[in-house]
Amino acid sequence: MTTIDVPAFYRQWAMHSGGVFDAATGKGHGTLEEARLAYRRFFQHTFPAPDGLIFDPVDADGVAAEYANPVDAIAGRHLVYLHGGAYIAGDPQGYRGLAGHLAERLRARVLVPDYRLAPEAVFPAAVDDAVTAYRWLLAQGVAPGNVVFAGDSAGGAMAVSALVAARDRGLPMPAASIAVSPWANLEHTGATMSTLDGIDPSVSREGLRRAADIFLGNAPRNSPLASPVFADTRGLPPVLIQIGGHEVMLSDAVGLAARLAEDAVATRLDVAPGRGHVWHLLAGHLPAADKAIADAVAFAEEHLPAGPTG
Amino acid sequence: MTTIDVPAFYRQWAMHSGGVFDAATGKGHGTLEEARLAYRRFFQHTFPAPDGLIFDPVDADGVAAEYANPVDAIAGRHLVYLHGGAYIAGDPQGYRGLAGHLAERLRARVLVPDYRLAPEAVFPAAVDDAVTAYRWLLAQGVAPGNVVFAGDSAGGAMAVSALVAARDRGLPMPAASIAVSPWANLEHTGATMSTLDGIDPSVSREGLRRAADIFLGNAPRNSPLASPVFADTRGLPPVLIQIGGHEVMLSDAVGLAARLAEDAVATRLDVAPGRGHVWHLLAGHLPAADKAIADAVAFAEEHLPAGPTG
Repeated sequence: MTTIDVPAFYRQWAMHSGGVFDAATGKGHGTLEEARLAYRRFFQHTFPAPDGLIFDPVDADGVAAEYANPVDAIAGRHLVYLHGGAYIAGDPQGYRGLAGHLAERLRARVLVPDYRLAPEAVFPAAVDDAVTAYRWLLAQGVAPGNVVFAGDSAGGAMAVSALVAARDRGLPMPAASIAVSPWANLEHTGATMSTLDGIDPSVSREGLRRAADIFLGNAPRNSPLASPVFADTRGLPPVLIQIGGHEVMLSDAVGLAARLAEDAVATRLDVAPGRGHVWHLLAGHLPAADKAIADAVAFAEEHLPAGPTG
Repeated sequence: MTTIDVPAFYRQWAMHSGGVFDAATGKGHGTLEEARLAYRRFFQHTFPAPDGLIFDPVDADGVAAEYANPVDAIAGRHLVYLHGGAYIAGDPQGYRGLAGHLAERLRARVLVPDYRLAPEAVFPAAVDDAVTAYRWLLAQGVAPGNVVFAGDSAGGAMAVSALVAARDRGLPMPAASIAVSPWANLEHTGATMSTLDGIDPSVSREGLRRAADIFLGNAPRNSPLASPVFADTRGLPPVLIQIGGHEVMLSDAVGLAARLAEDAVATRLDVAPGRGHVWHLLAGHLPAADKAIADAVAFAEEHLPAGPTG
């Protein structure tokens, strides 16, 4: 474990998110492209890509994506990782750390779609791209039972909503899905949106409101594929939700667990007190981050066919 | 795995519960003592005590209790198990199967309080007795960090409410608590009280209403120690809630997870689709039951000091 100033990390994250939102609404000093590049570099600096993996660009039926390939991948095993960034920022390059770490731990090829972002492409473009990438993956001959979905924040919501959309388009379900700090209710009606506001600056209520406005375009806030707490989630595979106890979206994450549970989905909710948004990004610095990643990997393993070392 | 007729098990359980409720309200053909004995025998038949354990009666500061002692207990490690039975039936003898199985798997001495039952002793007698047994255990020199609480149904609610009461009386918290199918909200306001009513006959809405009336006496249904969804749970140790997807109390169990999460308690909620009330009782017959017990033991292990082979 090396030391890191955790509050400073969250303040810096909030600053980079704010820079993206400002640029996206024409209030920034630079371009949106510049703000997204700064966002990527902040992620690369916090969680650099591990050594020894090979990152390959791939065209997933028109959706740009990147593979993280560990040296000892179990044949056929895949993770689809949907990055965060409030549907406005984030990209596979900035997530090479987290995706690469998961690839190594799970011994899986990790596919990270570079789904379209708002405001250039508003809802439901991101969800559409996630489904397209999954359909492409299956078309390569990958068995759905050998695939796990995962994502964080906006991507954590899509770890559920993209499966709802995939189910509605007749695609088979993957083995499981992992929603880290899911931004699951764009109405922001959970109690913790008030009670915890200000504790973790990276996910303030006002920041989320701004991002939702940019992402949604003219779509209602309760659109099921934007706010999966309102989705019909029947038929989804087992879902793990991991949420930090300092997150304003805590109550809405619990609401997502309730939605899944009432739809007869095998649901696990893990609440980590004192943790901020996507604390997994602090792996190597914070024992709770390594624990959360280990729990996510264990959940995936539980639902995947055993590897050669079983 | 041996086969068992699961729907028949739940129908028989409902019959025995109904017999207890009838006797408790003077509507039965026999005495309450006879109905409770039949209830015990049904449990003993479903989940007999494993061989090789020693069951010792003990007086825990005025609360009758029974120890389940595995042959290879880890020194100092204890589980306090609070049995179910709607606060009206159930006893350590009927729970030797589940308590003994947990004792073997966790390598812990398991203390099963024979807490007072309604209608003879209404709320909060049961919770008081659970706290007294815990205080007695600590007075024997057992370290609180070496103790895990667990319970099912009424005892699942007490796995939280007894800790709230213990905290309020200044007792140190144990390492963790496991609430199996907790009957956590006697107002029965969760959505699944309607949507799932009738699927699992052992926990019908009407049966729970009858039991709540017998248990509560003149206490309000939202008393925090009777309905821990309304309790202040701050300061509690990590809690695992396990609930079946066919249980009318599913929504209220999710509500308990929400309450704990918003009170900054490390919370894990596991929803098992298709499962009925306390499906753990079907261990050896149903893979999902063995899985649930294994998950509970793993959660306890995670929060206990490692054993000699740990």
